[in-house]
Amino acid sequence: MGDDRSTTACQPLSLINVRSLLDSVDCFLFDCDGVIWKGDTLIDGVPQTLEMLRSMGKKLVFVTNNSTKSRRQNAHKFQSLGIAVTEDEIFTSSYAAAMYLKVNEFPTEKKVYVIGGEGILEELKLAGFTGLGGPEDGKKTVQLKTNTLFEHDKSVGAVVVGLDPHLNYYKLQYGTLCIRENQGCIFIATNRDATGNLTDLQEWPGAGCMVAAICGSTQREPVVVGKPSTFLMDFLQKQYNIPTAKMCMVGDRLDTDILFGQNAGCKTLLVLSGVTNQSTLQDPSNHIKPDIYTNQISDIFNLLNS
Amino acid sequence: MGDDRSTTACQPLSLINVRSLLDSVDCFLFDCDGVIWKGDTLIDGVPQTLEMLRSMGKKLVFVTNNSTKSRRQNAHKFQSLGIAVTEDEIFTSSYAAAMYLKVNEFPTEKKVYVIGGEGILEELKLAGFTGLGGPEDGKKTVQLKTNTLFEHDKSVGAVVVGLDPHLNYYKLQYGTLCIRENQGCIFIATNRDATGNLTDLQEWPGAGCMVAAICGSTQREPVVVGKPSTFLMDFLQKQYNIPTAKMCMVGDRLDTDILFGQNAGCKTLLVLSGVTNQSTLQDPSNHIKPDIYTNQISDIFNLLNS
Repeated sequence: MGDDRSTTACQPLSLINVRSLLDSVDCFLFDCDGVIWKGDTLIDGVPQTLEMLRSMGKKLVFVTNNSTKSRRQNAHKFQSLGIAVTEDEIFTSSYAAAMYLKVNEFPTEKKVYVIGGEGILEELKLAGFTGLGGPEDGKKTVQLKTNTLFEHDKSVGAVVVGLDPHLNYYKLQYGTLCIRENQGCIFIATNRDATGNLTDLQEWPGAGCMVAAICGSTQREPVVVGKPSTFLMDFLQKQYNIPTAKMCMVGDRLDTDILFGQNAGCKTLLVLSGVTNQSTLQDPSNHIKPDIYTNQISDIFNLLNS
Repeated sequence: MGDDRSTTACQPLSLINVRSLLDSVDCFLFDCDGVIWKGDTLIDGVPQTLEMLRSMGKKLVFVTNNSTKSRRQNAHKFQSLGIAVTEDEIFTSSYAAAMYLKVNEFPTEKKVYVIGGEGILEELKLAGFTGLGGPEDGKKTVQLKTNTLFEHDKSVGAVVVGLDPHLNYYKLQYGTLCIRENQGCIFIATNRDATGNLTDLQEWPGAGCMVAAICGSTQREPVVVGKPSTFLMDFLQKQYNIPTAKMCMVGDRLDTDILFGQNAGCKTLLVLSGVTNQSTLQDPSNHIKPDIYTNQISDIFNLLNS
């Protein structure tokens, strides 16, 4: 049976399995970076593929660990790249962080310190919470002087850490002090992606880098709200009411996208247009195997139109 | 027997055990931050205590995980605080990093990228290696633009990460690219202290924070050359030729100093003048127990002179 599984799982996309996938799936969940775009560059053939799936009546949802943008800002990015996507089709890890606080009845009189982008602050505000930090702390410096105390806000009850290209020692100390010294302070990671395609030509350290830094200084482990945690799936299901067995998660990362899909009971399709290449996928040390893999999502379009 | 051990181990310093300690020990290894000083402020009673130990013929050695300074720079700091200590009595994790490369015959035509302070660059240079990065990369910024490639030196064969209050995304990307893309590149951590007394009034994120960040983006684990690794002990022993059973490690951190002493077979004395307080020491979750503990090293002086 073990052999059976390894031969049936992880097939390359083909005319046969793409038809069976489309027959069995009502909703496609797409990761964005490395699947839809790389940095600000659209990946070839994306618009016609999405259009084709919509014309077949498939529900499209975009589930991204990128926390630097809010849902609204992500919808703008889609529109600027010529793809019509509405805000409520987008689920970001910045939104997940705000929803985690909401679901857990985080007191609105407490504050949330943010190591990360504007998107987290925007989602916090929309959910009725007061955020501190974020981009504006990127310019702050520390004074390592005798008799100088670095002060932090004692009313911070949660620290949210996401991707932050403006990480500095000020933010590291601020977040660390809140988590270590404010009684009951929650430590939330939007996600722990090691790297991401922040630009089209290469990968950059991801939220996993900033999150690990705070783990290193606080010796605490965070609650992770983005993929592969299935926290967002509850919201998604409330909105669309589609069983996860009727969903297919499409992504470029094994340890976030594919694991998220598997954790939630979805079918999974790995695309090699982002951070994972075929040799990583097939390396014996990799134990996360998607149902199907292919080069890029436009292969679905091309197979059906050839 | 379990009870026996827990009552005999971890005694408060007393006139009885201080005498037995001084009888059985020829060499005292002192941590610096939190033991000798906090930031740039000397801890009370340190000079007379060190003087008394020297007058008793004890060898004094200073073993610090602080990598921001070289041995020479540390000797200057001692002198500026009015304590006569020579360079060869000081063992720093910056020196350990350079010695690790030397012992492992790191090719001198390869370069070493440094996330950390001037001290690492100075020790590398003294050992005949070419360092890159360090403080001068603290002012560099990244361009997250389409068609812009972040270039790194392909001849970097090792990345050394230590405490770096000037950590930024440039350094994170540089170090990550070297480790991920340069074949065989070694990842060295000077140490993994979670926090340190960079100033007298509070703790700050330590090298453990920067090291964890690079672990997060590279998904690699470093070689640790500072405490609690016993790598430095070989050099120390070559120089002084004293058996470790005749040494006592004095420090303020359980997971670096006391563990280092225990790993090496030394006696151990914890002082509560740094990052560890009595409740942490006695918490059931703590399994690292020093032989003896006391508030500060001057208690040795005071007990013997009262």
